[in-house]
Amino acid sequence: MHHDHEHPHADIIPPRSGTAFELRAGDTMTVIDAEGGQVADLLAVSKADIREMLSSGRTLDYAERIYLTTGDKLYSNRSNVMLEILEDDVGRHDFLLTPCSEATFRLCYDNEPPHQGCHGNLAAALKPYGVAEDAIPVAFNCFMNVPVDGETGKFRVLPPLSKSGDRIVFRAAMDLIIGLTACSAPASNGGTFKSIQYKVN
Amino acid sequence: MHHDHEHPHADIIPPRSGTAFELRAGDTMTVIDAEGGQVADLLAVSKADIREMLSSGRTLDYAERIYLTTGDKLYSNRSNVMLEILEDDVGRHDFLLTPCSEATFRLCYDNEPPHQGCHGNLAAALKPYGVAEDAIPVAFNCFMNVPVDGETGKFRVLPPLSKSGDRIVFRAAMDLIIGLTACSAPASNGGTFKSIQYKVN
Repeated sequence: MHHDHEHPHADIIPPRSGTAFELRAGDTMTVIDAEGGQVADLLAVSKADIREMLSSGRTLDYAERIYLTTGDKLYSNRSNVMLEILEDDVGRHDFLLTPCSEATFRLCYDNEPPHQGCHGNLAAALKPYGVAEDAIPVAFNCFMNVPVDGETGKFRVLPPLSKSGDRIVFRAAMDLIIGLTACSAPASNGGTFKSIQYKVN
Repeated sequence: MHHDHEHPHADIIPPRSGTAFELRAGDTMTVIDAEGGQVADLLAVSKADIREMLSSGRTLDYAERIYLTTGDKLYSNRSNVMLEILEDDVGRHDFLLTPCSEATFRLCYDNEPPHQGCHGNLAAALKPYGVAEDAIPVAFNCFMNVPVDGETGKFRVLPPLSKSGDRIVFRAAMDLIIGLTACSAPASNGGTFKSIQYKVN
């Protein structure tokens, strides 16, 4: 294995799959694009009350920016800080689009066989924690590269800017249930389906 | 009253308040900025199952644009069309930010007395229909002017481009419960709090 791909103690999310795990307040979580050019959809749900979850609309409103990076905070629908970004090798992530789903493949990809996508993977991973599929909101899409034309409002989904081994590090501000994927949509990773790695400290 | 302010059979939403009502599939709803320069936060919930509601992330993903106008469709979290935009005098609306709330005033407006905002107004108006406050997602913010700098990702909340009497017209694609406000946040209407009018046909 290439040196850049080695991340001791990192857990691996295989291509086009997802997982869920708990973070305690103060824990750090490192999401690693070990192979480069891959997207990881990230959700956070409060362990104390699963009705409190990540909110793109609150977070963007308070940041006054659609691109978030080191020092930015991710807020819940109750306007509480859930995660803070401690380090970021890439500086380009998306917080506009929902996780890809069976419908995404049906509506956006004529030539792709259907796949449950990150939405289905997150729903399956979070189901044991009681999170309903309908409640899954816009995810923080680590490494997803969605440049927006400010004049026309048009955006494109381009391959990530992340290179092999690039990381984004978060600190939990409350006890959380995390959902995390290796993205299933061709557009967000340039048609290559790769794994994602993560570490909790 | 000035001619432009006259809209026969229109209902009035007083400044800094909100309402909820039902639309049947095929009904048209006209949202009118009768005084000019005011924002109306719009939510849509499926009457058949309130767990199905408006999704900014699905809608933007399918439109491939952050600014929506005539011909665009607003999708639910289940990727079904809820509303279609039939006419639009303005061409600039926001679908990035959550309704303003008590927390918005606390975090973003040092010199403003707290107000429950559009979030509180929508929660109160939708409560009789069983919609929980935590479930309120990003609204389609009619007439809200949020230009985005595509390079830096920074955005500003500027006064609306709408002039007195400007309208946006929607057609319901399913039976819906609608939540609609006259916005309570100073930034989104240039510090003037005005009413909003609407008609259902």
